[in-house]
Amino acid sequence: MKERISKLTNDLGGCYGPRLITSQAGRAQYAISEGHHPAHTPELAVRPESIAEVQDVVRRARQLSVPIVPFGAGTSLEGNAAAVEGGICIDLSGMNRIVEVSPEDLLCVVEPGVTREQLNVDLRATGLFFPVDPGADATLGGMISTRASGTNAVRYGTMRENTLALRVVLADGSVVTTGSRARKSSAGYDLTHLFVGSEGTLGIIVEATLRLHGLPETVLALSWDFETLEGAVDTVITTMQAGVPVARIELLDAAAVRACNAYAGLDLPERPTLFVELHGSAAAVAEQLELVEAIGGEFGGGRMARAQEAEARSRLWKARHAALPAARALVPGAVTWVTDVCVPISRLAESIARVQSAIEEVGLLAPILGHVGDGNFHVFFVLRPDDEEAWNKARAINEAMVDHALSVGGTCTGEHGIGIGKKSALVREHGAEAVRLMKRLKTSFDPDGILNPGKIFTPNIQGTAARF
Amino acid sequence: MKERISKLTNDLGGCYGPRLITSQAGRAQYAISEGHHPAHTPELAVRPESIAEVQDVVRRARQLSVPIVPFGAGTSLEGNAAAVEGGICIDLSGMNRIVEVSPEDLLCVVEPGVTREQLNVDLRATGLFFPVDPGADATLGGMISTRASGTNAVRYGTMRENTLALRVVLADGSVVTTGSRARKSSAGYDLTHLFVGSEGTLGIIVEATLRLHGLPETVLALSWDFETLEGAVDTVITTMQAGVPVARIELLDAAAVRACNAYAGLDLPERPTLFVELHGSAAAVAEQLELVEAIGGEFGGGRMARAQEAEARSRLWKARHAALPAARALVPGAVTWVTDVCVPISRLAESIARVQSAIEEVGLLAPILGHVGDGNFHVFFVLRPDDEEAWNKARAINEAMVDHALSVGGTCTGEHGIGIGKKSALVREHGAEAVRLMKRLKTSFDPDGILNPGKIFTPNIQGTAARF
Repeated sequence: MKERISKLTNDLGGCYGPRLITSQAGRAQYAISEGHHPAHTPELAVRPESIAEVQDVVRRARQLSVPIVPFGAGTSLEGNAAAVEGGICIDLSGMNRIVEVSPEDLLCVVEPGVTREQLNVDLRATGLFFPVDPGADATLGGMISTRASGTNAVRYGTMRENTLALRVVLADGSVVTTGSRARKSSAGYDLTHLFVGSEGTLGIIVEATLRLHGLPETVLALSWDFETLEGAVDTVITTMQAGVPVARIELLDAAAVRACNAYAGLDLPERPTLFVELHGSAAAVAEQLELVEAIGGEFGGGRMARAQEAEARSRLWKARHAALPAARALVPGAVTWVTDVCVPISRLAESIARVQSAIEEVGLLAPILGHVGDGNFHVFFVLRPDDEEAWNKARAINEAMVDHALSVGGTCTGEHGIGIGKKSALVREHGAEAVRLMKRLKTSFDPDGILNPGKIFTPNIQGTAARF
Repeated sequence: MKERISKLTNDLGGCYGPRLITSQAGRAQYAISEGHHPAHTPELAVRPESIAEVQDVVRRARQLSVPIVPFGAGTSLEGNAAAVEGGICIDLSGMNRIVEVSPEDLLCVVEPGVTREQLNVDLRATGLFFPVDPGADATLGGMISTRASGTNAVRYGTMRENTLALRVVLADGSVVTTGSRARKSSAGYDLTHLFVGSEGTLGIIVEATLRLHGLPETVLALSWDFETLEGAVDTVITTMQAGVPVARIELLDAAAVRACNAYAGLDLPERPTLFVELHGSAAAVAEQLELVEAIGGEFGGGRMARAQEAEARSRLWKARHAALPAARALVPGAVTWVTDVCVPISRLAESIARVQSAIEEVGLLAPILGHVGDGNFHVFFVLRPDDEEAWNKARAINEAMVDHALSVGGTCTGEHGIGIGKKSALVREHGAEAVRLMKRLKTSFDPDGILNPGKIFTPNIQGTAARF
């Protein structure tokens, strides 16, 4: 490998100048994303600035059989962009032009390195916004690659629903265009949605056409504490079953609120709390509020704080947005392992109750929060790196959480992807037959296995069509 | 082939009894769907009643290299289920059990032969409904296979948005399960949405988990005639750009209204007409109505008829629902060729204006109508089978319509699929590179090419990875 890397370094050196990164310090910035997984430093990194440059890098790397790892903002949580087999990291964050905004068709065209905050700042004058909000200021290319979602997905959908079309560089360096600007199409196989969530293993996304949404006339943010976790969760379940079109409905358990108070200097009641946002006309928001209040009142909802102006809303949402750094700050030097499952809404209460009692039983520090309107929640395990016993307890709880989610028809990952962390869970979720089919598909797109190797598939999954 | 068919007939004879259909008359019922394409009678047909039986038929047919054509209600329009290479037709209409309805998770599990009307009748007591409505009482398996949509898609999405999970029999007879009951997931490749719209060429759908929606508290139906076609279309464009969440917004041009009056004994003003449906709480519907009225008023909207009770709504929608038979009835013995394009909403007015003036110029009988909120519309060419000149004119208009749709970023088919009718348009839409990728994918799923051969791909598209 060393020789091939040095050959590739020579090949690329002349064209990319300082955008070819060979130093240990330069490469180290691609070694770690936000997850709890170990560091993997790529042997080389490059910052292309055009589709043609991505094609060029892919062609040269492929000729030398050097693994290619696409990289965005480094905010993924399951080691999705870790260079586990070495190779070259393609840092797409420099391809960050907003190519087009079309208000009349409620869409935009972006390069993959554009971040969601950058896009929303750019959209300010249009009255439109891009709703998918995973918390981190991820790149849109990265969000497409992990099929990300977050707080607004309950009303506006995930990256799946908001990606209309893609341009993708394939393993052989060719470019394909998928989808169209039409709202719907039945023209052939849905390649767009095959690339969405494929974690850079089928091709490298170099351009995306995304749906935009009109900014609502009225936005009302609520925070609402509950006597019991069950009461908060039952409020969510009933709200969803009643079809109230909430824009966000987020849960923090008491431990999460406690962490946020400490971290952000807040003074929230340290009880299970829902953060809700309602979008619509003034009348529609008033109507939704009445429904939500009536439902929550039945389940022990306490004091409800409300905020309508932008600044007041930011203050109210501060606790929710601080949750991840707040968890990290609980124990200096600790690592935060963010888990992720998603269950059918009717099974949410039992899923959260089980995991909460498991956490209590073993005495771990592990706030729970989630995009509960979708049935999606996270446990933030706060762990000292060397506390092997605590890691083992966390692993056991995570496995049980995944197994329970699967047993009720849910999924092992609502929004973080498989990466290196959920590979065996994927087989448990879909069965070896379906994962073999995915692998067969992978092999047909990338026969040499150079695109983001070591992700999604456990080594024992064979993609060859054994039966044929 | 004859020998192989006779061997397969023998193989299956013992197990399937009268459900194995060998007679000319019996097979002829699978020769024609609703489209304008020529008849293709399969050499054999079978009506399986279980997943195991579908597996059995697929395994036996594959051993003998006999083409397999899945068939539902026969309502497809692009020859999607035509036995163009002969072989065995698998009629799935007998697999019509509703396996489960889960109101608490707003989903149901159905066999592929369940029709959308059957499902909605079954759901009556639950307060839920399945919204996707392509007009015909198609099977849900067929609707998934063509990524169907129809009138409600503008608010509730197409089969893409409403299909959560599938069970699929692959070309080797194995069964895979895709997706889950969770509202979202990022667990591996999105096989579910790869099978949605794949027209039976990648596998045979034998079970589907579909999303259900709460019946709205208030439903208000409107019909509204306009001075000009432009005025009606501009009303639609502005309504969509303003984000009014209409449930349906359908256009009939004057020719379509005239046909419906004649066919259904109605007395509508023979002018371009919008049919609209508003769903929501009483207050929300009132608010939407106010917005729609104000917009349409600006564009020459005339008399608006309204209906709220179920029976009155049916009467109001009668014209829209009668449109296809009404067009057929215009000329006794004529064939109706239903075209289908979908464009970005901002280009809808010019698209429809172009096609209307082309129709006028050549003097064809061709009502226009569409699910215009999605930018999707159809021309119903009414053609005598032997009027070659008229067919040529229609072909030229259809080609121009497709080319224009593609030139403005739209698609060659909004909801009917590629089948045998849009194969070259698919290449124009996505480019040879993307279609080769689709073919490569097809080859990896079905290396012997036995699943619904002759569809989607023009013969010159090679699926082998030439570059590797």
